[in-house]
Amino acid sequence: MEKIDLSQLDYDEIKDISKKQMEDVFDKKQAARPILNEINERGDKALIKYTKKFDGVELESDNIKVSDKRIKNSYENLSEREIQALEQARDNIIDYHETQLPKKIELDEFEEGITLGSLFNPLEKIGAYVPGGKASYPSSALMTLLPAYVAGVNEKIICTPPSKDGRINDMTLAAADIAGADKVFRVGGVQAIGAMAYGTKTIDKVQKIVGPGNSYVTAAKMLVRGKVEIEFPAGPSELVILADSSCDPGYVASDLLAQAEHGPDSLVILLTTSSEVLDSVKEEIKERTNSLNRSEIIKNSLKRAKLVLGEQEELINLLNDVAPEHLELMIQNPMSILNEIKNAGAIFVGNFSPTAVGDYATGCNHVLPTGGMAKIHSGLNVYDFMKRSSLQFLSKKGLRNLREITEIISEIEGLEAHSNSIKERFKEE
Amino acid sequence: MEKIDLSQLDYDEIKDISKKQMEDVFDKKQAARPILNEINERGDKALIKYTKKFDGVELESDNIKVSDKRIKNSYENLSEREIQALEQARDNIIDYHETQLPKKIELDEFEEGITLGSLFNPLEKIGAYVPGGKASYPSSALMTLLPAYVAGVNEKIICTPPSKDGRINDMTLAAADIAGADKVFRVGGVQAIGAMAYGTKTIDKVQKIVGPGNSYVTAAKMLVRGKVEIEFPAGPSELVILADSSCDPGYVASDLLAQAEHGPDSLVILLTTSSEVLDSVKEEIKERTNSLNRSEIIKNSLKRAKLVLGEQEELINLLNDVAPEHLELMIQNPMSILNEIKNAGAIFVGNFSPTAVGDYATGCNHVLPTGGMAKIHSGLNVYDFMKRSSLQFLSKKGLRNLREITEIISEIEGLEAHSNSIKERFKEE
Repeated sequence: MEKIDLSQLDYDEIKDISKKQMEDVFDKKQAARPILNEINERGDKALIKYTKKFDGVELESDNIKVSDKRIKNSYENLSEREIQALEQARDNIIDYHETQLPKKIELDEFEEGITLGSLFNPLEKIGAYVPGGKASYPSSALMTLLPAYVAGVNEKIICTPPSKDGRINDMTLAAADIAGADKVFRVGGVQAIGAMAYGTKTIDKVQKIVGPGNSYVTAAKMLVRGKVEIEFPAGPSELVILADSSCDPGYVASDLLAQAEHGPDSLVILLTTSSEVLDSVKEEIKERTNSLNRSEIIKNSLKRAKLVLGEQEELINLLNDVAPEHLELMIQNPMSILNEIKNAGAIFVGNFSPTAVGDYATGCNHVLPTGGMAKIHSGLNVYDFMKRSSLQFLSKKGLRNLREITEIISEIEGLEAHSNSIKERFKEE
Repeated sequence: MEKIDLSQLDYDEIKDISKKQMEDVFDKKQAARPILNEINERGDKALIKYTKKFDGVELESDNIKVSDKRIKNSYENLSEREIQALEQARDNIIDYHETQLPKKIELDEFEEGITLGSLFNPLEKIGAYVPGGKASYPSSALMTLLPAYVAGVNEKIICTPPSKDGRINDMTLAAADIAGADKVFRVGGVQAIGAMAYGTKTIDKVQKIVGPGNSYVTAAKMLVRGKVEIEFPAGPSELVILADSSCDPGYVASDLLAQAEHGPDSLVILLTTSSEVLDSVKEEIKERTNSLNRSEIIKNSLKRAKLVLGEQEELINLLNDVAPEHLELMIQNPMSILNEIKNAGAIFVGNFSPTAVGDYATGCNHVLPTGGMAKIHSGLNVYDFMKRSSLQFLSKKGLRNLREITEIISEIEGLEAHSNSIKERFKEE
């Protein structure tokens, strides 16, 4: 943990910290490209080859897809309360995302005879990448598939890597089923992205690939863009907390530790106006770290942590420059500064809104832009799985009102037949 | 013009026709890559080199930017009615796009103490590519910049290639000014995309590049994705008209001709249930083509035109597979089939809604997905220039209601510190 007094430090030294987190992804493109090419050319055969190479699992072409029976069986290894928690999380995710759903058809009459609007349709087929291997990420299955479900996407598939014994974790399988996955495939890594982008005999080509993965997976997603769409490239997880003397340093410390346990490359930053808070948080973190299961990961992550002291205004500027994935506001009257927040994936307001509750339970999405991408991108949402057609419906009177503008600009652009297509409608006049 | 009876033809032969239009773009990536790299490394010097090479214009680093005085002077070569037409088009574009603008802050209480919502912010800096050279595309300046203006984007720049004499067309400059461009740069092609993506001494790096260009420009936009965002890669323009016996074949022919005059690679398709309509449209097109200014372009484009006869249901399936940039519905009760339209950039409903009026005057955007990309992408809109942060504000009571779900899923995922960050808030209980 580096303690920084902003008044004694070059602001620029810290503002690009999140952007640097993405460099690792750019480095992986070289390694990902030949694997993608081989999947494109050899399909399932290449999938099987790379699953053996990277996951140590021998697949056959008829067991790349997880069987319906296996998915059904997965529930047997979950407790009743685990199943209920996943189902409640699902319901909350659906409730929240339904507020984002546009009306299928929107039409307004702008002037007499000029009715304009939108037609919204879902994408047809999407694929979600869910990390796997030793760990289990049922929440990723929920967060990626359910916005697509709310949008009305017809076919939703999941690719997730098997563990060494060739199995997919029961929790992940049950969550995939609870989230409404149509098919689950036992493949991960670059090869899974290639399969969903190009299609193989077993895995259909999808229109959009979403979901978190390691830097190889993300590099692969970036490379297949154009063939398919992706939501955004995401790197290691990040949390910035803005806290003043009104905060509880124990809450701040526990949230920073939760963030740090994601992985050794997680980024945690405390911005505070109070040197007492800074010192207490530092103390609390030190006291708690060793007793945690993932203390080694946490210690590695904390090496790059920043605890920054400054004036509130400059701290707000700094957080906007960092554009963190997660932002917690533990200050007095946090609502009063929302208008000053320009860039953040998800904003957690007040002392009782820890990031963890948003990761799993509120219903908001946890697939969020990292690496400064919150300056440009939104977190995963229903619009990611829909597209909008404009609707333009004019009467003869409406067209007459727009006749002159259209003809003049057609002439400016030298497009005579454009102008004629308007004149044609009035040739008897 | 190829006349096709769907009953006698393999459906698949035509359904991928729009996708093939994009192949040209993929081919241009090889040529674009080294130019982009050179812009990245050498900045303005490389810009000047390639502007000389491709546009035949010798720039100096101090005149890459078009001067304010030159922009002001551009109006002198426009007539009063031309200026008015551009201003009215601007007003209509603003009116329509304002209907897409979300509320800055949206909050709903989902359960007692669980208040969730969104914070919308505009992007900071965007760049628009406006084609130039011999022709003049003032409408492109309006269509690319005004949605960004409505979104609230702070800095909006335009790059547009100079003609051989080094000048930018007066109409384009006036439109850029009317659309609120902060700066206009006299550079085009791959080099302009590189400049906006990487930044040079003269041209600031932007967050997103939008706007139509030739296949080299589009290939360059695809290559810089990840460094900056783009709206979508767009290829040659397309129109599909669905017409039945209720249509006026003269209207249909005039709209197909307008589409065909965009360029020799424009794609025009008539889908009709009436062989009389098909024959009349064919006849009308033949009669009118030779007298048009751009008849050579039109004839080239029409070589690949398709006039397709079939049942309405299969024609609707076909248009959804083609996913055209523009779709006109000249059938009885066109509103009744809107629910069956899945994929189209812009939909023009009825006999008095020619594509040309949407190109310039209704206020809807004419930057639309082509090449089958309407299956995945929306036309340019206000959301392209905004991003959404989720807002999560819980009271202690609210958090208590979500405590169990969060703790259970944290445990499933093996993230103890996540669970602890919730427990921390209730440790006195």
